[in-house]
Amino acid sequence: MCQLLGMNCNVPTDICFSFTGFQARGGATDVHSDGWGIAFFEGRGTRVFLDPQPSCLSPVAELVRRYPIHSKNVIAHIRKATQGATGLENTHPFMRELWGRYWIFAHNGNLLEFAPELDGGYLPVGQTDSERAFCWLLQELRRRFGGTAPAAAALFAAVHELTLAVASHGEFNFLLSNGDWLFAHASTKLSFVVRQAPFAQAHLNDQDLTVDFTELTTPEDRVAVIATQPLTDNERWTEMPAGTLWWFAEGEPARTLTTRPGPARKTT
Amino acid sequence: MCQLLGMNCNVPTDICFSFTGFQARGGATDVHSDGWGIAFFEGRGTRVFLDPQPSCLSPVAELVRRYPIHSKNVIAHIRKATQGATGLENTHPFMRELWGRYWIFAHNGNLLEFAPELDGGYLPVGQTDSERAFCWLLQELRRRFGGTAPAAAALFAAVHELTLAVASHGEFNFLLSNGDWLFAHASTKLSFVVRQAPFAQAHLNDQDLTVDFTELTTPEDRVAVIATQPLTDNERWTEMPAGTLWWFAEGEPARTLTTRPGPARKTT
Repeated sequence: MCQLLGMNCNVPTDICFSFTGFQARGGATDVHSDGWGIAFFEGRGTRVFLDPQPSCLSPVAELVRRYPIHSKNVIAHIRKATQGATGLENTHPFMRELWGRYWIFAHNGNLLEFAPELDGGYLPVGQTDSERAFCWLLQELRRRFGGTAPAAAALFAAVHELTLAVASHGEFNFLLSNGDWLFAHASTKLSFVVRQAPFAQAHLNDQDLTVDFTELTTPEDRVAVIATQPLTDNERWTEMPAGTLWWFAEGEPARTLTTRPGPARKTT
Repeated sequence: MCQLLGMNCNVPTDICFSFTGFQARGGATDVHSDGWGIAFFEGRGTRVFLDPQPSCLSPVAELVRRYPIHSKNVIAHIRKATQGATGLENTHPFMRELWGRYWIFAHNGNLLEFAPELDGGYLPVGQTDSERAFCWLLQELRRRFGGTAPAAAALFAAVHELTLAVASHGEFNFLLSNGDWLFAHASTKLSFVVRQAPFAQAHLNDQDLTVDFTELTTPEDRVAVIATQPLTDNERWTEMPAGTLWWFAEGEPARTLTTRPGPARKTT
């Protein structure tokens, strides 16, 4: 199984601290050594750094850890291969364009007998169930809404419906962003923390490193960090219940919908 | 105006030496300081490194220069903005997916009154004429060939026709690759060199740096390097005539077609 890391903020923020702990899980403190990747939105643009090497050995990861890229939405992934060989084309996150915006997707889980019909608008380049699910999601969104992006609320409702269909095939924890918001699906395992004033110190689980956010922030800053497992041992992480889809915007949860079997209902 | 750099090889090769000279043109030995980018194909996968900073100051460029990524097809670009602000979304090369393969495109030139009808299959994220041309090219290729990739020769012929249409709007030097081949259009200015046995030493134009390819190669290796201006001062570069489209495969030119006004004719 893989590990996911996401960040959604109200002002562009660097992820160096959180990434330091996350990076260690790629072969050092954990077994996720089949490649890694991270995508940063900067305005409408994106930068995607991918490496099929374990992140704890990767010179690209070392660059990301040291070079502060300021972003409102970040998605990172460390891979433990389930479907598809270790290789660059199977390394998450994946990127496609829809409605003149880049979309970024990373998945943790395993989908069985998931072979949806793809019309050619989006086709997987690699062999993973994850990229197949991403292509199908975008295809179905374009089918529903045509050539124009809907409002985020309508999009969230549509992604919820599509998530129900995919999640019936197996574990489908994912992070999805177009740069404006970040959607997170806790199929089995995902947690988040919101950092906001009054800021404090945070200490990593995976390395003996502490950061004092009071020195790095302004009182208006707000940052949501989402991860498969909590990254720090002295902050209050919220475990996202299995079967919930979350919409993060401006550094906090905006809406949640359940994806447990049965009729969809609003939980918050 | 921008600068282009491409590499097409018969075995995966690193571009560290050529990139060292090219990187210096991004604000040090030349004026192309509005960002830069480089894309590497590794099998079906791609890695795209982008930075809106001048390449001579960019920590990402420093990583690329020092970290040997082995690739059969590489496209790099240093930007001097003509259309579209300096920003990540306007930084070349651009990437999209067609027929389950990634396509990479970079452009040097300026297209005037180029506003083709886009059906939504590919839409620009930024504001450049370049990305618009790339989206239109892919849209038209999909319209012609439907859901299945044609053979490379048919593709080259189609790209030739589409290039004629775009080039009527202005300067349209470009590099295009899907990882199997590299197409290069010399609208006004482009040169190439083929490095093959017997290998020799090469000395950069832009920095006092020499490499001895005899120490780094096997007798079967063949590498074509394509650049807006020759990168070395002691190799035999071929200036590509204005108005020629080139198909590079396995490290050498495979075919050329003219794109000068008038009926298309085969030149080699």
